[in-house]
Amino acid sequence: MFQAKAYAAVSATAPLAPTTIQRREPTPHDVRIEILFCGVCHSDLHQARNEWSGFPTVFPCVPGHEIVGRVTAVGSAVTKFKAGDTVAVGCMVDSDGTCPECVAGLEQFCPGVTLTYNAADKHSGGITYGGYSDGIVVDQRFVLKVPSNLPLAGAAPLVCAGITTYSPLRHWGVTRGKKVGIVGLGGLGHMGVKFAHALGAHVVLFTTSARKKDDALRLGADEVVVSTDANAMQKHAGSFDFILDTVSATHDLNAYLSLLRRDGNLTLVGAPSEPLKIDAFPLIFGRHRLSGSLIGGIAETQEMLDFCGQHGITADVEVIRMQDINSAFERLLKADVKYRFVIDMASLKQ
Amino acid sequence: MFQAKAYAAVSATAPLAPTTIQRREPTPHDVRIEILFCGVCHSDLHQARNEWSGFPTVFPCVPGHEIVGRVTAVGSAVTKFKAGDTVAVGCMVDSDGTCPECVAGLEQFCPGVTLTYNAADKHSGGITYGGYSDGIVVDQRFVLKVPSNLPLAGAAPLVCAGITTYSPLRHWGVTRGKKVGIVGLGGLGHMGVKFAHALGAHVVLFTTSARKKDDALRLGADEVVVSTDANAMQKHAGSFDFILDTVSATHDLNAYLSLLRRDGNLTLVGAPSEPLKIDAFPLIFGRHRLSGSLIGGIAETQEMLDFCGQHGITADVEVIRMQDINSAFERLLKADVKYRFVIDMASLKQ
Repeated sequence: MFQAKAYAAVSATAPLAPTTIQRREPTPHDVRIEILFCGVCHSDLHQARNEWSGFPTVFPCVPGHEIVGRVTAVGSAVTKFKAGDTVAVGCMVDSDGTCPECVAGLEQFCPGVTLTYNAADKHSGGITYGGYSDGIVVDQRFVLKVPSNLPLAGAAPLVCAGITTYSPLRHWGVTRGKKVGIVGLGGLGHMGVKFAHALGAHVVLFTTSARKKDDALRLGADEVVVSTDANAMQKHAGSFDFILDTVSATHDLNAYLSLLRRDGNLTLVGAPSEPLKIDAFPLIFGRHRLSGSLIGGIAETQEMLDFCGQHGITADVEVIRMQDINSAFERLLKADVKYRFVIDMASLKQ
Repeated sequence: MFQAKAYAAVSATAPLAPTTIQRREPTPHDVRIEILFCGVCHSDLHQARNEWSGFPTVFPCVPGHEIVGRVTAVGSAVTKFKAGDTVAVGCMVDSDGTCPECVAGLEQFCPGVTLTYNAADKHSGGITYGGYSDGIVVDQRFVLKVPSNLPLAGAAPLVCAGITTYSPLRHWGVTRGKKVGIVGLGGLGHMGVKFAHALGAHVVLFTTSARKKDDALRLGADEVVVSTDANAMQKHAGSFDFILDTVSATHDLNAYLSLLRRDGNLTLVGAPSEPLKIDAFPLIFGRHRLSGSLIGGIAETQEMLDFCGQHGITADVEVIRMQDINSAFERLLKADVKYRFVIDMASLKQ
């Protein structure tokens, strides 16, 4: 075991504070990573504050699953990585590797998946600690290669916000010639706009804030619709092949279902805590589909990173110091970030 | 024009009563049909009582869109039918024929579709009158051939209850080796069980009434689950390829979404009047889909009828006289029918 510096919540109401955690020495299959940057996902805040009734938090909790770093050591059986490689780790650090989901390359649906934080740790017997730390040890199967041309701070959010939006766009066949809606321009939404644009689609950004228009166009949207403008919405009735809804606040999905073409699909990646109120008729007329999507498998995450390398895509980020995490959480609650906070782990050395 | 006997509602609160309506003489493309049987769909009751806010009723209203009859005359350009043929007419009697939906054989989604009753009638300038009548005139494109081996009373519900369940089962790829759930054992549900069984699937019927078990097994279900039994439900978690929900009463869909395999689909054909309360998590975990389906196109309806001929499938019906329609509506509201009322139009001659 070795000691790593980290920031942890010790209770649901405590601010995150510096601490020291134990990490395992690399087993033969492990990669030891010096963490350089870690994105701040809304999930980090929810988990640190124990706000998900279905996923109770074990304290102390070290959040962080948008990890970019440098390999410092590898186990004897590691073939994919060597010291010095620039790598990333996302929301998962292990899975059973044998179930149908793993065989299908969809480890996120493996019943035995190990999430990067707040999950039972097979090695330690405790729980997993995430990326708000200066180092981590991860099985090579869950370590990703970061294309060398990508700036590292902006690359960190790709392994959660990026894959969460890339995967459904790919799964539902977004390509050139398709008309795609992205609902919400936050951490997820701004990645959705970039990916849908890079995939060649005609991209319409839906937002409640007219002031986001210029930024949406800059990020790759072809049109911006203020979703509270019923007339503007009605003009797009029945025209979308696919809509990606990234909003986790409670909102009316029926308005979006009515914008789909026949057999069109609306996919949720935001998860409102209140049940969605869905009318049956917008589903039945037009044979529309409402679906969900959960991050993406490891192979698809690597594909996404490679796609980002080819297209020069990273997240738009505001780099913060680890010491600023609590004020960043408060700003996150006010959606006061364009579009992702990323922690520079060099600050942990100060 | 010629006169046809019919039963009509003259207001939302009036019982259906005998009347005489005007039908057009066949144009060159029309088929004149002597109606022999007409099924009683729940939609008939809703429309007669003006219970759909989105589809206001024009009175007098002659319901009925599960029509089986015999051709008595054909227009000069009719090639598909001749006098004496046994035919059926379902929920649609016309469409624009040129839009992408029509070209795709999905006339039910045509913006210019003409429903069999309570729709603007291009010929008369009034509204269309349905099958609670001794005769009807329909464009040959919307007339279907009834396989000669099928009993006519049981065949009538195929063109609404039948195609409404057959189409989603086919669209979502139900075949041998698939595990399929049917929710509800009414007019739609009992057809869903028969079709899913005939398609070779392992069929599980979900019902709130344990007393329906024997009947469900007789109709083709392999298993019956009482949906109020949480333990029995839990045993099927994550195991269904497809679930067809035929229940139009408000009910909890989240319990069913959790029973789907990864990428599994839950399709609604019943339309509860209250919004559905859908949790985001059962959609996101497992990448599940909630969708709707609306009857089926004309070509698929003919395919369904031919499938029924090959497999000897008809609806289980209780034949009534036209004069009994009002008491049948009352029994329908109590779900007191196994499984579809069908009106014998010979009663109109009495």
